[in-house]
Amino acid sequence: MIVRRLKDAEKGDRKIVSEGWDSTRLALRNDNMGFSFHITTIYRDAELHLHYQNHLESVYCVSGYGSIEDLATGEVHTIEPGTIYLLDQHDKHILRAEEEMKMACVFNPPLHGKEVHNAEGAYELDAEEVKG
Amino acid sequence: MIVRRLKDAEKGDRKIVSEGWDSTRLALRNDNMGFSFHITTIYRDAELHLHYQNHLESVYCVSGYGSIEDLATGEVHTIEPGTIYLLDQHDKHILRAEEEMKMACVFNPPLHGKEVHNAEGAYELDAEEVKG
Repeated sequence: MIVRRLKDAEKGDRKIVSEGWDSTRLALRNDNMGFSFHITTIYRDAELHLHYQNHLESVYCVSGYGSIEDLATGEVHTIEPGTIYLLDQHDKHILRAEEEMKMACVFNPPLHGKEVHNAEGAYELDAEEVKG
Repeated sequence: MIVRRLKDAEKGDRKIVSEGWDSTRLALRNDNMGFSFHITTIYRDAELHLHYQNHLESVYCVSGYGSIEDLATGEVHTIEPGTIYLLDQHDKHILRAEEEMKMACVFNPPLHGKEVHNAEGAYELDAEEVKG
């Protein structure tokens, strides 16, 4: 059994800060769960163009308000607490935060730890590992 | 892309109600994500004896307060918002809620949908599927 706390993890290497978002990765590939689990904050007014070509991702909104635009269909879905979206088709999308959003994210395959988005809005399959 | 909302899912087959807990399963095996994702409520004063012999599970506390006792070591870990525990060793444990707790749970392999705990506190590997 492994127990971690967000407030501790945010002080260390598990927290990645980028443009418009940060993400604290509470479970990673080296935990051998077969998925990774992150608490991600999307900053107010952020607009993120994303395309996880190498990963499946589910995103559950814990707090905040925004939307996701599905670029395959043009459809815009509002995001509020209790909304989940599953990127089961490696869906190209735009994520917008009208208010700061806290999201519980699950990736398969699991992240190594240090991933940030590349120019296509994807994570590469390899990255530096976070331990401890 | 699949979008679901907790308030809708709670009205249908995705919500399982059992002794001391209920769980609304927002992503299941038939979504082909490689994991399932559930929002689980542990009722105040519930004490659950659990042993997921067939699954790995991560549990993130969104709200509430309680504890988990690791029966291999006797150690008791408090659970509060921001705590995650990973049952990476199919750990036999007791989950206690001092206040009602809302948990974001991820299972690997993913659940089919209708699982409830067996006498050992495990989920069987096969169960009735939930669709829609």
